[in-house]
Amino acid sequence: MCRFIAYLGKPIMADELILQPVNSLIHQSYSAGEMTEILNGDGFGVGWYVHPISSLPGLFRAITPAWSNTNLLYNAPLIRTNCLFAHIRSASEGGISEVNTHPFRYERFLMMHNGGIPEFHRVRRKILALLDDEVFNWIKGQTDSEHVFALLMQHVKEMTVTGVRLTEDQIKQCFQKTFDVIQQLKTEAGIADVVSTFNLMVTSGHRVFGTRYSSHPEIETRTLYYSTGGGFQCKEGICKMLDADSGVQAVLIASERLNDCPEEWIPVPENHFIAVDRNLNLLLSPMHC
Amino acid sequence: MCRFIAYLGKPIMADELILQPVNSLIHQSYSAGEMTEILNGDGFGVGWYVHPISSLPGLFRAITPAWSNTNLLYNAPLIRTNCLFAHIRSASEGGISEVNTHPFRYERFLMMHNGGIPEFHRVRRKILALLDDEVFNWIKGQTDSEHVFALLMQHVKEMTVTGVRLTEDQIKQCFQKTFDVIQQLKTEAGIADVVSTFNLMVTSGHRVFGTRYSSHPEIETRTLYYSTGGGFQCKEGICKMLDADSGVQAVLIASERLNDCPEEWIPVPENHFIAVDRNLNLLLSPMHC
Amino acid sequence: MCRFIAYLGKPIMADELILQPVNSLIHQSYSAGEMTEILNGDGFGVGWYVHPISSLPGLFRAITPAWSNTNLLYNAPLIRTNCLFAHIRSASEGGISEVNTHPFRYERFLMMHNGGIPEFHRVRRKILALLDDEVFNWIKGQTDSEHVFALLMQHVKEMTVTGVRLTEDQIKQCFQKTFDVIQQLKTEAGIADVVSTFNLMVTSGHRVFGTRYSSHPEIETRTLYYSTGGGFQCKEGICKMLDADSGVQAVLIASERLNDCPEEWIPVPENHFIAVDRNLNLLLSPMHC
Amino acid sequence: MCRFIAYLGKPIMADELILQPVNSLIHQSYSAGEMTEILNGDGFGVGWYVHPISSLPGLFRAITPAWSNTNLLYNAPLIRTNCLFAHIRSASEGGISEVNTHPFRYERFLMMHNGGIPEFHRVRRKILALLDDEVFNWIKGQTDSEHVFALLMQHVKEMTVTGVRLTEDQIKQCFQKTFDVIQQLKTEAGIADVVSTFNLMVTSGHRVFGTRYSSHPEIETRTLYYSTGGGFQCKEGICKMLDADSGVQAVLIASERLNDCPEEWIPVPENHFIAVDRNLNLLLSPMHC
Repeated sequence: MCRFIAYLGKPIMADELILQPVNSLIHQSYSAGEMTEILNGDGFGVGWYVHPISSLPGLFRAITPAWSNTNLLYNAPLIRTNCLFAHIRSASEGGISEVNTHPFRYERFLMMHNGGIPEFHRVRRKILALLDDEVFNWIKGQTDSEHVFALLMQHVKEMTVTGVRLTEDQIKQCFQKTFDVIQQLKTEAGIADVVSTFNLMVTSGHRVFGTRYSSHPEIETRTLYYSTGGGFQCKEGICKMLDADSGVQAVLIASERLNDCPEEWIPVPENHFIAVDRNLNLLLSPMHC
Repeated sequence: MCRFIAYLGKPIMADELILQPVNSLIHQSYSAGEMTEILNGDGFGVGWYVHPISSLPGLFRAITPAWSNTNLLYNAPLIRTNCLFAHIRSASEGGISEVNTHPFRYERFLMMHNGGIPEFHRVRRKILALLDDEVFNWIKGQTDSEHVFALLMQHVKEMTVTGVRLTEDQIKQCFQKTFDVIQQLKTEAGIADVVSTFNLMVTSGHRVFGTRYSSHPEIETRTLYYSTGGGFQCKEGICKMLDADSGVQAVLIASERLNDCPEEWIPVPENHFIAVDRNLNLLLSPMHC
Repeated sequence: MCRFIAYLGKPIMADELILQPVNSLIHQSYSAGEMTEILNGDGFGVGWYVHPISSLPGLFRAITPAWSNTNLLYNAPLIRTNCLFAHIRSASEGGISEVNTHPFRYERFLMMHNGGIPEFHRVRRKILALLDDEVFNWIKGQTDSEHVFALLMQHVKEMTVTGVRLTEDQIKQCFQKTFDVIQQLKTEAGIADVVSTFNLMVTSGHRVFGTRYSSHPEIETRTLYYSTGGGFQCKEGICKMLDADSGVQAVLIASERLNDCPEEWIPVPENHFIAVDRNLNLLLSPMHC
Repeated sequence: MCRFIAYLGKPIMADELILQPVNSLIHQSYSAGEMTEILNGDGFGVGWYVHPISSLPGLFRAITPAWSNTNLLYNAPLIRTNCLFAHIRSASEGGISEVNTHPFRYERFLMMHNGGIPEFHRVRRKILALLDDEVFNWIKGQTDSEHVFALLMQHVKEMTVTGVRLTEDQIKQCFQKTFDVIQQLKTEAGIADVVSTFNLMVTSGHRVFGTRYSSHPEIETRTLYYSTGGGFQCKEGICKMLDADSGVQAVLIASERLNDCPEEWIPVPENHFIAVDRNLNLLLSPMHC
């Protein structure tokens, strides 16, 4: 059920995030270390921002596995960015196609998900009924992920006063409402006890938000870590997060630790909201079930 | 906006229908003769029945153009069938993916479409609202075609008494109702004057039904022809419909004439329903706007 | 480094071989049981014969993994055949493309390989130098496998007197010569000690030939089994080789045992040639290093 | 037989070259204006340099048509480069695969071709015999194009003294020798009169070289134009080459005129070599048959 990485910080080359680490997403695509299913070969996607040029992110998605994609291999070393999302897919809901591949893009936002809503078909139609026409028409595929993000975007739209950026707390409320609504729909469909999991990440290219959330947190959800420091740097095959002597200049949020330095990685607690602001301040805040 | 062929009759090899004719679907994929847009390279699909083995059809779909597909080239000569649908796509609504490629398959039925509903997004949500959960969940893609077939299947379900096969007239009513509903929804959306076109084909493997229909029949719709005879046979590069001396044993319904024998092909009149029954009797019947 | 199955016998439905067994090739594509690398997601291919129709085999190849291919899922249940080769790929030499996907097709023959020649680039050019123009031009890809088969076909051509089918012993000599030549070229290139492995299968649709061979048989090569009986049959989810009470009517040669009935599967000894004739008599014969 | 564009000059956004012009490569992929075959849907590729980051080019290739590729659509607007090659393919020799898609990449060079060697199989083996092992092993596909470039690279290697960059005249000699050798091989194969055409482009990211060349220049070869000016700029849907008031800052070499301003485009004469140096000085020089 997928793995991902999110980066916000000083400019970095995409291959230092995606290709070079010893437990890179490429490695996780055929040999994920912290999942029961080690295989994530149902496609992958990379989104990144180049702010001087555009507020819209680039987005490269493919339905072939990450481990064999030459376009990724050739081009990641040329992409310099301050904000990147990359995701490898192990399909549960929805077939293999580009529109079902994360990250999803809504206006200038990128979104990706590790987790799922089993028996999704029982709630899909009801989720759709809650969306306005614009968000409804944004959905292109059949994944639970895309529908969850649509519902999240619906809540964000409803809360947004024109021109005023939402606070971190307001965004957290949007996530909470999304999970509460889904749980309510599950209950109405008679599947309240089915475990739905939401390691979600969303970014505008300037801030990053996410959750490590489960409807049943007593049951292990997908791993999620964060790492902050002076920069994520690869040298002679070793990729490390540098000390933050000059202040935090890089934040990584990842499904798995990318290197063999466990001290660099802090688990995101279960059922918590995580936010990284423009100054790379990181907030963790509990959510309720 | 696509081209297709439908065959019902005595067993025939798939390549005699798809590859060998001088104006085969392969030829039409890069050089269609009777359309403004001659290109149909956004994928293709072939569905066929092998009744001794299964009532469910085989279905091969690809997102690459027909003209370069080696799987089609190798395998069409080995498929013997009495009922075949083949379609080449020029995408209007919906991106390029397998789920957006015709023919669509619903239970044992195959369906394909040449035509479209411009500004489809204005009516899509309302079409979906008319579907029961089972048909709603059947839809996998974003094409107007798949939604039209869903609405058609909804009408077929509503009209069907368990175990009793619908008559040709009842099936015609289902098509008529589908077009009337769409036109009504277009009117409510303020696009009544937008021309929507429906060269549709549906089969169970035993009977074939279809339409050549436009909301505005005074404007030229996509071409559609039929040909009946003793068999469709390719010899030394020439493919012809044989005379029906021993009775009709083959019926072809096609967007374009497959050979240079215009006398073999009769245009389906505009806004008509066409039906071919198990005995290969062919019925044409007018529909209203 | 790949897994495969080969079938020769009375007509069988392709899905009984490829989809239904508990350790089917689909299962092995993401979870092979008898290999260090359990993943075989770099494409797959199926070749089969329908002799009343053609002496040429059908061939379906795809670069996406077997586990997610809907064309395979839909169509395997409609293919009835007496001879089938199916292969799932874990790429070593050669990129991901259809031309690098097994089975390979040469005239009416199908060929597939599990194994490889490490440092293949050191011998590739010399192998090519041994081929006549016709075989040279047959090669379309960059795999060691395709080059090995080209060399095998070269030896078959050289040994064949027009119109006279080679005996099993002559075919065995062709395989032996192929391995000996490759080992000689490896020695000239200074890589004599690199272990090259050849679980090869070849068929004309009427007879099946193959090897379980290594340049260094004291080191474990890829597993290979055979099973013979009255027929391979799937019932209520269990697939079994029936007893040969009425004589042998089915022969399976497979990288892994397809079911949980180890008594049905006999390992092909290391460095042996295997042949199945038109009457399904199975021959095992030792080869030298 | 393909279309392409080459750009060298001040930094430009890739979409201004590939997507925005009224006769962009996207438009030419389904409706090329200056060819008999208007269709170029057998894949496409884009290569570009980002010199502060790397001397190696990025390279994105796909086997699906350019007109429907969302990765191209999303990402071209984020690529800023001073040197770009883009190519759309209409396959003649070699199947549809990434390795057969231009541009080809050899070390830091990019190469693309519009034209071909009919009956290529008659000379392919002999071309290969002229290559050293390193260039021989570089070839991954089956196109005449890739083999022509291999031969060109072989000549460049033979002429290069270590560390000394070849002059424009020396590079022209390498092209001439390549064409002469091919013509000689064609003669030996009995196909001297078959017309082989070579609109070739090669770049290191700093200089651009190419030819408009035919073995039979009295017969029309593929169109090729160049345009130089102060910059290629798109504004409100119109893309123009600006006047060179402040000196030439942009050079475009393209199969077709990208806009409706014929005065901006000068045809490259038949059988001429074209070179653009680091200062954007453009040289045209005749070649012999």
